Amino acid sequence: MIKRVALVGGVVAAATLAAGPAMAEVPLETGYIFNTLSFLLHGFLVMWMAAGFAMLEAGLVRSKNTATQCLKNIAIYSIAGLMFYIVGYNLMYLDVSGWIGTFSIWDAGEIPAADALEGGEYSAGSDWFFQMVFVATTASIVSGTVAERVKLWPFFLFTVILTAILYPIQGSWSWGGGWLSEAGFLDFAGSSIVHSAGGWAALAGAIVIGARKGKYGADGSIHPMPGSNLPLATLGTFVLWLGWFGFNGGSQLAMGTMEDVSAIGTIYINTNLAAAAGVVVAMILTQILYKKIDLTMALNGALAGLVSITAEPLAPSPMLAIFVGAVGAVLVVIVVPLLDKLKVDDVVGAIPVHLVCGIWGTIAVVLSNSDATFVGQLTGIIGIGVFMFVTSLIVWFVMKVTIGVRASEEDEMIGLDKADLGMEAYPDFGVTSSK
Amino acid sequence: MIKRVALVGGVVAAATLAAGPAMAEVPLETGYIFNTLSFLLHGFLVMWMAAGFAMLEAGLVRSKNTATQCLKNIAIYSIAGLMFYIVGYNLMYLDVSGWIGTFSIWDAGEIPAADALEGGEYSAGSDWFFQMVFVATTASIVSGTVAERVKLWPFFLFTVILTAILYPIQGSWSWGGGWLSEAGFLDFAGSSIVHSAGGWAALAGAIVIGARKGKYGADGSIHPMPGSNLPLATLGTFVLWLGWFGFNGGSQLAMGTMEDVSAIGTIYINTNLAAAAGVVVAMILTQILYKKIDLTMALNGALAGLVSITAEPLAPSPMLAIFVGAVGAVLVVIVVPLLDKLKVDDVVGAIPVHLVCGIWGTIAVVLSNSDATFVGQLTGIIGIGVFMFVTSLIVWFVMKVTIGVRASEEDEMIGLDKADLGMEAYPDFGVTSSK
Amino acid sequence: MIKRVALVGGVVAAATLAAGPAMAEVPLETGYIFNTLSFLLHGFLVMWMAAGFAMLEAGLVRSKNTATQCLKNIAIYSIAGLMFYIVGYNLMYLDVSGWIGTFSIWDAGEIPAADALEGGEYSAGSDWFFQMVFVATTASIVSGTVAERVKLWPFFLFTVILTAILYPIQGSWSWGGGWLSEAGFLDFAGSSIVHSAGGWAALAGAIVIGARKGKYGADGSIHPMPGSNLPLATLGTFVLWLGWFGFNGGSQLAMGTMEDVSAIGTIYINTNLAAAAGVVVAMILTQILYKKIDLTMALNGALAGLVSITAEPLAPSPMLAIFVGAVGAVLVVIVVPLLDKLKVDDVVGAIPVHLVCGIWGTIAVVLSNSDATFVGQLTGIIGIGVFMFVTSLIVWFVMKVTIGVRASEEDEMIGLDKADLGMEAYPDFGVTSSK
Repeated sequence: MIKRVALVGGVVAAATLAAGPAMAEVPLETGYIFNTLSFLLHGFLVMWMAAGFAMLEAGLVRSKNTATQCLKNIAIYSIAGLMFYIVGYNLMYLDVSGWIGTFSIWDAGEIPAADALEGGEYSAGSDWFFQMVFVATTASIVSGTVAERVKLWPFFLFTVILTAILYPIQGSWSWGGGWLSEAGFLDFAGSSIVHSAGGWAALAGAIVIGARKGKYGADGSIHPMPGSNLPLATLGTFVLWLGWFGFNGGSQLAMGTMEDVSAIGTIYINTNLAAAAGVVVAMILTQILYKKIDLTMALNGALAGLVSITAEPLAPSPMLAIFVGAVGAVLVVIVVPLLDKLKVDDVVGAIPVHLVCGIWGTIAVVLSNSDATFVGQLTGIIGIGVFMFVTSLIVWFVMKVTIGVRASEEDEMIGLDKADLGMEAYPDFGVTSSK
Repeated sequence: MIKRVALVGGVVAAATLAAGPAMAEVPLETGYIFNTLSFLLHGFLVMWMAAGFAMLEAGLVRSKNTATQCLKNIAIYSIAGLMFYIVGYNLMYLDVSGWIGTFSIWDAGEIPAADALEGGEYSAGSDWFFQMVFVATTASIVSGTVAERVKLWPFFLFTVILTAILYPIQGSWSWGGGWLSEAGFLDFAGSSIVHSAGGWAALAGAIVIGARKGKYGADGSIHPMPGSNLPLATLGTFVLWLGWFGFNGGSQLAMGTMEDVSAIGTIYINTNLAAAAGVVVAMILTQILYKKIDLTMALNGALAGLVSITAEPLAPSPMLAIFVGAVGAVLVVIVVPLLDKLKVDDVVGAIPVHLVCGIWGTIAVVLSNSDATFVGQLTGIIGIGVFMFVTSLIVWFVMKVTIGVRASEEDEMIGLDKADLGMEAYPDFGVTSSK
Repeated sequence: MIKRVALVGGVVAAATLAAGPAMAEVPLETGYIFNTLSFLLHGFLVMWMAAGFAMLEAGLVRSKNTATQCLKNIAIYSIAGLMFYIVGYNLMYLDVSGWIGTFSIWDAGEIPAADALEGGEYSAGSDWFFQMVFVATTASIVSGTVAERVKLWPFFLFTVILTAILYPIQGSWSWGGGWLSEAGFLDFAGSSIVHSAGGWAALAGAIVIGARKGKYGADGSIHPMPGSNLPLATLGTFVLWLGWFGFNGGSQLAMGTMEDVSAIGTIYINTNLAAAAGVVVAMILTQILYKKIDLTMALNGALAGLVSITAEPLAPSPMLAIFVGAVGAVLVVIVVPLLDKLKVDDVVGAIPVHLVCGIWGTIAVVLSNSDATFVGQLTGIIGIGVFMFVTSLIVWFVMKVTIGVRASEEDEMIGLDKADLGMEAYPDFGVTSSK
């Protein structure tokens, strides 16, 4: 079953929505309002995730790069929204011919006017809004990984390409009704389509841009560069957790039947349990491995659980949701130091959380959804992975050899805030300049 | 068309709500629940904006005044709510006779009891809640401008007068059904009625109180006083952006028909695009003008877009919404340095954002809403502007010559936190005391 | 009337929900969706309160303990959710035989499946989600009081026992339909059941663990230990205020009739007015008593108002709601210094706010709800108080004499962040290590 079908003019095949026997008993107009409200309500929760990423990343970078990280995050959300309107939405959803949709501006005329409401199960505008807020998430993932050394305008250019072209194209393959959906690939709310996709783009960026100066010693030593504001990172994680109810719950795409609204309830529960399990497992594991609980690992444990359950938050039992989230946290605790050994410098741990757990979550669909097959899931993981990694690598590389992607060594030392913005995030605090 | 009609006893003219042909098909009771839910849901989003202003302003003042700014913001929200109950609501909405409503406490008896629900299209209480949260916004604008030197209790006294008397009186002219609504003035969610109104009161305050010590040199030099916590200011901006979906979306005042809920979707989209355009334009402009991107200007760009689209978030096409937001950001980038040249010391840039963009947004209504006329809009801009500026000026001035409005020079130097609160916002951080 | 009845299999006695005459006119299926939506919507607002407690407490502890406080709060929310699933919910709600429910895992099968929806008034899952988010609140209260010196894993063990066993057992007495509900005890949203319950557990902890080193001098002197980040504490208070609309509003337990949704509106208003009154009264009182306004007292004033109105947010007139909140703030201003005289070290003031105001709020029910009796309320206050205080005291004491509950003196001096987590909350800021 395709979870996000191609939607033209606000009309979605009635068969999808009217699945429950109860539908007949809720008046059509009432159902329309509920469905639209679900998109709006869950949409603003996902929008709120942009603030979550901003706070998480602002808290995990060093204070000399904090203002820049704030700027990047509000810019990402803005660029993503504009790009998705100008080209992304139609590229993802309009007349998808297997591999790609249509290059055109989203037609505002498709927002149902007062005299043209008949027939639609929900307003096309509310659907656009909900799909739009997902795009920024993908870009936020990249932003966290390449923080503290990427050049500002090239990063924005990458964001434009990612949100206007790359994300929508691979999104059209599944949610747009393209070849991946025909191959039986299932990804309810985007473990692969949003999170791994962003993770692959981030990995490509980290490789092309290289590690921060001083992060990895020539002797194989690893120099920790601790985040400058952990309460902010904690706040960001809570914001993301809250927003995820919108991310997964809204992906039910309907609320106008008893079946649908009950499904959203189940999704909230599973989403919450997976995240909770992620936190607890990360705490226990870091206590065992390092004799200390690592707060940032606990936060990433929550995110690991959330990403892992995203591909299938509805079908699992609560116990399975706990398991899926727990495995996600184990993966993060293992992969974070592994990446450091590989000298892939991922400032906030976005690759373990979003790429690795995104893959795990996509595979885990087969544990509870009998419509999913291992081959179908693997097809999606590989298809999306190869496309996103290769195209991102090319974009980053072309930018590297043309406009450059990396701040100068001097700028990196004094911090991007002073270099690119001419300001400090915390000018009054006695910040240790050597850090 | 009056957007916010006088509402007595929970009954609003059925004609207003039943505009759509679909209304007949949604049962009356169901529509009542949806309409009430819209007020509650969007109301709590607007309430959340109080936190947004608090964080924005706390981040943009120097650390020695941060705790005071936090206090002011939670006090403002509290005072506004109490005043609107005690006198404001009825002054704005009860039996408005052209220029003013009624001096009386909002009658709790008008909250529909279980046995008196028939006939109302939504609960009077939910409407009160939604209107109430708007009041605090007006006062928050003033708070940002006069920060770092205003005396605490006089500021609270001004807040009382503003939220109990000034805001409701001018609000009665349009949303209460008074002379401005009869003059054809249209302001959907309050570009003028909320934002410019607050901006005028702020401007009057800035003039009477004067600039911060050391801000403007005798030689015409301008001494920058950078905000002490930019991630907090970024968080505040994201909070405001989220809350604005409630501010503009809820101002549709109904959600019980397909037409209304679709309209809310359109409003979300336009609100979001205007803000996004504001961010991008502010980034590009500051890069060109100053060779650096100014984070605080990007944040104010978002707010500029939001204020600008507020007077008419429903009628514009997405492209026009982008244009309206973009122009707002241009205005902010121009007016912020202009105010400094005029030695009007506006700590957070509230006058450019709320007053100037509020005017622009009110004018921009004519670009998409054929019911609006340039003369009608100008009438409202001038009417509200003259009233708010003159009365605020009088109140500030009378306070100045009686109880005083400005902290002593010594208090200003050591900071209002120590002077008025006897505490520090960040006692553990090595704050540079000279700042 | 029992406010939260035992719920099995998603079916609640129709009589409870169909109280209003309007019910017959809203189709059953539509009502089901509204009721479920209320649980989900208000549930995520209450979930957001976990972030509020995290920020409030992170801001009110010294910077050397901030990261630990963040960790505790995300851990609490995670543990509470898991425990409530594994044992708490059924212990509180399944087949309650007067004093206790059933020891068993919540049966996921009770989440209505697509083909088993008939008959339920709302989805069992949405109810579970809403009840679950309340549990963490109780534990968060404890966390604030015992901050800065409690040992980490023993604290987590206490959290497990509190959320899995203690809270559900006393909750079963009233909301589960046990002996307290039969005794006529009324507590709408948990002034006693959630807030005082947590307050008693916190008081027991504070007594067993003892005060922070240096807090109380041998000569009776009291050494202030100011919070390290007051904007964060302010943010936390705003978050809690927002979340409280969910806490109290959602406790109407239904939204599917005009009567219910109107009641939620009334609850929002009263909740807001009580909090606003709390802020203003705390400001005025501290100005009079100390010649300075105390920001943390103003924040606690808001929380005092919120806790006080929680036992009965529906029945009071707005004026009575203001009175209830105002008295709460008076109590907090009185009790905070009183606790210090008794050398009970309550880091964030949780005992005055949650325990004392919880008791006041529970008593205040008799002022507006004619179904309540002073004896019935007192029975609940004493019953819950004795049970929670005694059992908590035993658990804390047994832990003290076995695994220990208190960090070593050295760990307390260097801060729990370095000792337990091996990290700093703000590594870049020039933190004064002596504090």
